[in-house]
Amino acid sequence: MRDVAIIGVGCTTFGEKWGSSFQDLFVEAGALALEDAQLSGEKIDAMYVGNMSAGRFIEQEHIGALIADYAGLATRHIPSTRVEAACASGGLAFRQAIIAVASGMEDIVVAAGVEKMTDVEPGASTDTLTGAADREWEGFMGATFPGLYAMIATDYMHRYPLTREQLALVAVKNHYNGARNPIAQFQQEITVDTVLKSTMVAEPLRLFDCSPITDGAAAVIVAPLERAREFTDTPIKVLASAQASDTITLHDRRDISTLDATIAARERAFKIARVTHKDIDLVEVHDCFTIAEICAIEDLGFCKKGGAGKFTADGETALGGKIPVNTSGGLKACGHPVGATGIKQVFEVVQQLRGEAGKRQIDGATIGMTHNVGGTGGTVAVHIMGVL
Amino acid sequence: MRDVAIIGVGCTTFGEKWGSSFQDLFVEAGALALEDAQLSGEKIDAMYVGNMSAGRFIEQEHIGALIADYAGLATRHIPSTRVEAACASGGLAFRQAIIAVASGMEDIVVAAGVEKMTDVEPGASTDTLTGAADREWEGFMGATFPGLYAMIATDYMHRYPLTREQLALVAVKNHYNGARNPIAQFQQEITVDTVLKSTMVAEPLRLFDCSPITDGAAAVIVAPLERAREFTDTPIKVLASAQASDTITLHDRRDISTLDATIAARERAFKIARVTHKDIDLVEVHDCFTIAEICAIEDLGFCKKGGAGKFTADGETALGGKIPVNTSGGLKACGHPVGATGIKQVFEVVQQLRGEAGKRQIDGATIGMTHNVGGTGGTVAVHIMGVL
Repeated sequence: MRDVAIIGVGCTTFGEKWGSSFQDLFVEAGALALEDAQLSGEKIDAMYVGNMSAGRFIEQEHIGALIADYAGLATRHIPSTRVEAACASGGLAFRQAIIAVASGMEDIVVAAGVEKMTDVEPGASTDTLTGAADREWEGFMGATFPGLYAMIATDYMHRYPLTREQLALVAVKNHYNGARNPIAQFQQEITVDTVLKSTMVAEPLRLFDCSPITDGAAAVIVAPLERAREFTDTPIKVLASAQASDTITLHDRRDISTLDATIAARERAFKIARVTHKDIDLVEVHDCFTIAEICAIEDLGFCKKGGAGKFTADGETALGGKIPVNTSGGLKACGHPVGATGIKQVFEVVQQLRGEAGKRQIDGATIGMTHNVGGTGGTVAVHIMGVL
Repeated sequence: MRDVAIIGVGCTTFGEKWGSSFQDLFVEAGALALEDAQLSGEKIDAMYVGNMSAGRFIEQEHIGALIADYAGLATRHIPSTRVEAACASGGLAFRQAIIAVASGMEDIVVAAGVEKMTDVEPGASTDTLTGAADREWEGFMGATFPGLYAMIATDYMHRYPLTREQLALVAVKNHYNGARNPIAQFQQEITVDTVLKSTMVAEPLRLFDCSPITDGAAAVIVAPLERAREFTDTPIKVLASAQASDTITLHDRRDISTLDATIAARERAFKIARVTHKDIDLVEVHDCFTIAEICAIEDLGFCKKGGAGKFTADGETALGGKIPVNTSGGLKACGHPVGATGIKQVFEVVQQLRGEAGKRQIDGATIGMTHNVGGTGGTVAVHIMGVL
């Protein structure tokens, strides 16, 4: 297998982008990535795009052909493939691009993610997102994602020492970071009080424990490592790509507040990359809800099970902490255009490793990790990247 | 890159399967493929599943995790990934499985396809399928797939010598083959009269020019060629995997009755496989409408442009003809559960190459081809397979 490097990245701003269509978002992110790699579209050999539910959000499928067409690449007849794994769609698109280059079948490959979520009636987004859970055993029984993660939070708080205030601090930290990220949907700092006084969504999760509904797109370009310096002076090496599945239903899990797929993907990723936790300078984790970040930090092995509340309260996950988590603002503050999130995580890590993260820069960062979750943990993708 | 072989195949019967859920269909096809490969599920390293629109047909996304779970493989945390390219979803899932094995990342990989189309209100299927076209420029303007292919047929018949009767003979031939295929949705022979007297759908296409709405699933298992004989005495080698895109919209094409993506994918496939048309003993083409088979035969290069009507009428595409086309009955008679079709085509070719195709067996077949189309040709996958 060939080694793979990232040679370009691009991302739209995230938010309620009423003026931009699904196609507009993808084309903008793709153009930014091409510009970043100083590459013309003619050099692209293949594309993978992560998207969860354009079928329901905008009544559009066949997303690979759609984006190849609107990107002006259709008449070159390149392969263009959509990958879907709910909220992990972006992470899996990145992984497929890596596999395509590693195999030797393709050289220059775009991995993109896009979701246009705001063009539906209020409430329809929540139902569409429920498609990431088991429709028959969870959705039809009335479970929504805030409800499912509320069950995780309730179970977790019953078993481990996590206070309501510690949970709120996840959102406070992510808004702090988001306020320093020019693409973030929410660039405002908040306090613990903001969280605790916000609307109750699903006990114990309040509005500010939940990631928002977002439009956005992100793109990264990968190439064989040996060719990377043709395109950029700052290639980022893909040290590991790992993916794991688990039961799609929460109630079938061994333990509902431990994501076994995160543990499996993390173990594989560390083994492939031949690095340890001490080597990781920052991690983008899948904080669709504040409790998800708490579980992620633990299941990725950055602190012991049950310890993430105190770990967060002690500032260990903040900029300047032991392991900065979600320097982008995470899904909570940067926003969560479902299919784009996994690619945006890579975008953030690449910016950090290049020293281009501005006010949220982690000094001397050389290795970063991403953690992208589908549903309540039915799919997890973990990637590790490093400077050369 | 490693060579790849098919070590097992399975397929449900196709039809209106009111008693089987989406999950039931997938599990049945997967179990049949495992049984065929004499393999236990524990040996599976990864899965890819082609599915077009479970989001709209059954309100379910996150299909990779869903099928891993229902197949009993979720707790082994294998990677399981959904691929979507409208009606070419199955072909692209097969291709991703091949790339994963070729890369060396995975050894034993399932490529499956599944669609459950009949659990919606009458008419909803047609609208859902329109998601394979450009929703904004085609769907919202009132174009449906019968309408789009009717435009292709009208253009074709205006420019080339194709009679209405010759077009009907495509369906007659495919029903003849379907009547000899135990998994086919329609196992009845028809006559030219059956087609010409059937309901008009979109001038000049009548009901019997159109593939049906179908439930079904198919699965194939691939492995590194050097390990294939551990599992089967009759491994089938993958000689080429090729994929091409084109504009998603029909009106943006250079020529609406020539599928440039078919030509591009075909040229790549022949180059990779190092074989010529004379070497191909049978081909499964994407006959979503009778006119689509006419175009496919020509664009794949089996006869000259404009010649497919006479070629068909002369019996050259029938069992025993120069190049038997759609021995399975094709989408027309075997049925078209969208995401499953590309995998079912491989299932048919493998049965033929093993000499297990019963009454529709092509004597001494050693090399076969599949041709799977998304939309009106926005995506095309071509695969060539051969006996060892």
